[in-house]
Amino acid sequence: MYQQTTIEIRTSGRESRDITRDVQDAVAASGITTGLAHLFLQHTSASLMLCENADPTVRADLERFMQKTAPDGDPMFRHDDEGPDDMPAHVRTVLTQSDMTLPVGNGRCLLGTWQGVYLWEHRHAGHRRRLIVTVQGD
Amino acid sequence: MYQQTTIEIRTSGRESRDITRDVQDAVAASGITTGLAHLFLQHTSASLMLCENADPTVRADLERFMQKTAPDGDPMFRHDDEGPDDMPAHVRTVLTQSDMTLPVGNGRCLLGTWQGVYLWEHRHAGHRRRLIVTVQGD
Amino acid sequence: MYQQTTIEIRTSGRESRDITRDVQDAVAASGITTGLAHLFLQHTSASLMLCENADPTVRADLERFMQKTAPDGDPMFRHDDEGPDDMPAHVRTVLTQSDMTLPVGNGRCLLGTWQGVYLWEHRHAGHRRRLIVTVQGD
Repeated sequence: MYQQTTIEIRTSGRESRDITRDVQDAVAASGITTGLAHLFLQHTSASLMLCENADPTVRADLERFMQKTAPDGDPMFRHDDEGPDDMPAHVRTVLTQSDMTLPVGNGRCLLGTWQGVYLWEHRHAGHRRRLIVTVQGD
Repeated sequence: MYQQTTIEIRTSGRESRDITRDVQDAVAASGITTGLAHLFLQHTSASLMLCENADPTVRADLERFMQKTAPDGDPMFRHDDEGPDDMPAHVRTVLTQSDMTLPVGNGRCLLGTWQGVYLWEHRHAGHRRRLIVTVQGD
Repeated sequence: MYQQTTIEIRTSGRESRDITRDVQDAVAASGITTGLAHLFLQHTSASLMLCENADPTVRADLERFMQKTAPDGDPMFRHDDEGPDDMPAHVRTVLTQSDMTLPVGNGRCLLGTWQGVYLWEHRHAGHRRRLIVTVQGD
């Protein structure tokens, strides 16, 4: 059985946003108890991340790490049609993930205690992001 | 239903090569309309990437980013049996992906408007690369 | 058909540990011959990696690369509740993977000749790590 749905998420600019509840709700709505949930973000300047969910400093540090690794406006980057954060957003997406599969058991994603699912917006402007959730199983 | 096929791709040395059509053709051939397509590259010195598909400068910038992050011939690397690009190729593979799952709807991969699927050859010499495509669904 | 099992792996501190046999055993035990095997690590300071399996120097070089990219005790990192390797472990996890899907054919994972599956412990202390393996197929 395959249940496919699209969730639209409005971001408010560069941020990592907890979407764990949206994902768990989609799994619950599917009626599937054992199987897998697949997440797919249809964009190349925002990405998915599994991250520690207790201390927001972790995500602030990750943000700082990425800003250092792929700095906005780095003269190394030639693609800047949409501004100094254009190419860094693509680099950050490639270094993280656009798709993610999570195990489903007892009708929910079997995340670890400290794992949360985050949508990481890499552009400074807010965007509407489309996440396709496909739940499969029995 | 599971349809599994292997695609052989000849690369011409370090390059990112658009394989979106190969993947869409494999999905179409499977006859599956709703489900998932899984891609798996059987190598550790080439990888898969979802990337912006409109401006080739994006991939040139990604290439430059990787050359700076894991430079060929970096004395930090001790494994160089196959030359100065040997170990950087492994690093680049680990930082990107060897497997990728894409949602399938209406008989095709539901990619975003600006998303393309690329095989990223990290070695300077051309190679024959094997991609296993497994399509599942109804 | 979906077969789900949890494997507990005790690490002995920062190391990359070959778990290919554990994964192949789980696939064999499932009785599934064609399909996919999904691995999910329920932690944010250890990760999964597909890596060259012949020369251990490759993994030593990857370890050195990560230590340079996200150094223990880097003053850039503010989250250090569990010590100087706390935040680097999260960064290393985000740059690699927590979930991985492998194609299954003839009752085993169809890995390339030089591909091994590794659990990468990023903390200096040993930990008990939980890996959920979900095998699906016919």
